[in-house]
Amino acid sequence: MPFSPNQTLTLCSDFGTADGYAAAMKGSALSVAPELRILDLSHDIPPWDIRRASFALWTAVPLFPPGTVHVVVVDPGVGTDRAALIAVAGDQVIVAPDNGVISLLYRRYPELQAYQVETPQAVSATFHGRDVFAPVGAQIAAGSLRVPGSLPVLEEPVAFPCGYAVDATAIQGSIICADRFGNLITTIDWSAIQEPATVAVSVDGFVIETLIRTFGEKPPGSLCFLEGSSGLLEISCVQGSALEALNTTAGAAVRVLRKP
Amino acid sequence: MPFSPNQTLTLCSDFGTADGYAAAMKGSALSVAPELRILDLSHDIPPWDIRRASFALWTAVPLFPPGTVHVVVVDPGVGTDRAALIAVAGDQVIVAPDNGVISLLYRRYPELQAYQVETPQAVSATFHGRDVFAPVGAQIAAGSLRVPGSLPVLEEPVAFPCGYAVDATAIQGSIICADRFGNLITTIDWSAIQEPATVAVSVDGFVIETLIRTFGEKPPGSLCFLEGSSGLLEISCVQGSALEALNTTAGAAVRVLRKP
Amino acid sequence: MPFSPNQTLTLCSDFGTADGYAAAMKGSALSVAPELRILDLSHDIPPWDIRRASFALWTAVPLFPPGTVHVVVVDPGVGTDRAALIAVAGDQVIVAPDNGVISLLYRRYPELQAYQVETPQAVSATFHGRDVFAPVGAQIAAGSLRVPGSLPVLEEPVAFPCGYAVDATAIQGSIICADRFGNLITTIDWSAIQEPATVAVSVDGFVIETLIRTFGEKPPGSLCFLEGSSGLLEISCVQGSALEALNTTAGAAVRVLRKP
Repeated sequence: MPFSPNQTLTLCSDFGTADGYAAAMKGSALSVAPELRILDLSHDIPPWDIRRASFALWTAVPLFPPGTVHVVVVDPGVGTDRAALIAVAGDQVIVAPDNGVISLLYRRYPELQAYQVETPQAVSATFHGRDVFAPVGAQIAAGSLRVPGSLPVLEEPVAFPCGYAVDATAIQGSIICADRFGNLITTIDWSAIQEPATVAVSVDGFVIETLIRTFGEKPPGSLCFLEGSSGLLEISCVQGSALEALNTTAGAAVRVLRKP
Repeated sequence: MPFSPNQTLTLCSDFGTADGYAAAMKGSALSVAPELRILDLSHDIPPWDIRRASFALWTAVPLFPPGTVHVVVVDPGVGTDRAALIAVAGDQVIVAPDNGVISLLYRRYPELQAYQVETPQAVSATFHGRDVFAPVGAQIAAGSLRVPGSLPVLEEPVAFPCGYAVDATAIQGSIICADRFGNLITTIDWSAIQEPATVAVSVDGFVIETLIRTFGEKPPGSLCFLEGSSGLLEISCVQGSALEALNTTAGAAVRVLRKP
Repeated sequence: MPFSPNQTLTLCSDFGTADGYAAAMKGSALSVAPELRILDLSHDIPPWDIRRASFALWTAVPLFPPGTVHVVVVDPGVGTDRAALIAVAGDQVIVAPDNGVISLLYRRYPELQAYQVETPQAVSATFHGRDVFAPVGAQIAAGSLRVPGSLPVLEEPVAFPCGYAVDATAIQGSIICADRFGNLITTIDWSAIQEPATVAVSVDGFVIETLIRTFGEKPPGSLCFLEGSSGLLEISCVQGSALEALNTTAGAAVRVLRKP
């Protein structure tokens, strides 16, 4: 079934806004299709942080009305031979460099299909957000570029490891990233934990035993684990930063174990 | 008189944008009412800073056209039994947790009336911005939820102390917060100061004697007081930070005294 | 030829968003003309940084569809006798304080013409963004204020030095600012460099000899120079900050020399 656009384009980048790069993408998209509605998903992804961008897409994309197009420009490989892709994920479309930024979305949209975007020759070597991704996204959002149409399939999009393994004694996953509040977002589906009240969570070997449903249940400073708002296991510090408390990093090992 | 919405929804949160939480609220609102205009009021309220959010509302809400709905999600008590409210403030509506974030607005809208929002059972425990506040705000902005309609009145909304006292010798108030520029915003109405040229202002006992009308009047680094752009007494440091210069904090005592 | 507005207004400021000042400008503009489309160009210009704002305009303004109005409020001189201006730059209009923020745009739009805006008496002394620039921009964007109409010409708008000089042995310019990634943006047009492969670039006397086309060509940490995405010579550090590596500042001298 072809994608049916709703004239809405979101923009996600690591550009910040102080240099006008994010605004240049808005202008570029509107110059293609002046009638579009343009929304900021984020321009504050930390520079080159593909994991954080992947989490932002996981959090936000499924909430949008059917037919929304999301342009994502976190692109350390700009100007190299990295591919560019259009991903059809349920009723949403993502336009992005092929660098792993859509990795997590496969779990929400197992049928996700990626297609190749050809980069025109006559574009800048350093700003494909303005010259490729925003205009292509605008064409899709406006309906002038049909998706998937006859676009060639991108066979194996780049992905970073963001799964988890379940065996008889533990669930093993890793930290995707920390969010603004210092909550540690893990790769582990909350629904994979059979009896949350009976488990503990270890991060880098440090064990957290306190399960909460929401932050107000425990005093400030308490380290705990909970079901995150988007269905992943999270480790949090009430009114504080679990990232700082545990002094850990993205990619660190996480294990869910039965309590001793 | 019932509130007559103009299809415009603003969003204010302490989510930042890098995690997709703010964008999830946009998607959630548009999924309720795709025709809405959505504007960011702010997503950079410092985490859990109810006073700063209260000042942002004071500054921005009165400027919007009649019929605008403002969703505010600075919500350290999410998931606890704190109430959720819809406040009708003149021709504006605010949808927010009942945690004091509307405190200052009572001074702009003495007739402000708050109503209760019932939180559905089937929502996440940690993200009412996406699951309650944005959809409710969208329904009000789109006209599908009438305000006040038959909503139950919220009798005593939570408030933080943000008034001031006038006696024969002084006006006593406090610091609400510092703004981005380090200006100290006080609770004291400028209009309460009878003869500004004859007074000095003390903060934590430190006395500022220089009255200015605007920043360009004094050399960089000058500590002074002035009428802030929204009608409150402010303490400023020209092209510098009064917050740093005075090493003070939100809540500190402020006194307006006759000059010796 | 009179300016033909397209109902789109962008906002650029150094207000951040946490205090509601940026949102107050949105409300103020919509109260003038509720039908406008309002887009954020940036609210994260560093406080009072006219050079950075000038670069953001250089980057973004030319991308917008004909008839777009850009309101720029980076205004350390607010409330003094600095003038306010409306600049017609090709098919774009800028509304801003007369403080140099449009300096760089003269190179993109040599025919740029500036006109005077009269500041009403009855406005705040510290927030002309809300009280003057946003409403004037909204009137222009909505077509209720004709530009140039009978506006008086502003004869010599304030400018900061942002040119470069070419002689037989070198091109001499300076650093405009660093961008979010620490790239050093220079005043030198890339097109002024006859044979890029044969030159080196010195900043504050430190010489960079490596020419790249895009960041992926060299290993992280490499100092190099390249054609920036908006046509200016830039000095970059791959996946790092040239600003930090060179420990330099805005305004520093830059020379393009034949390689020894």
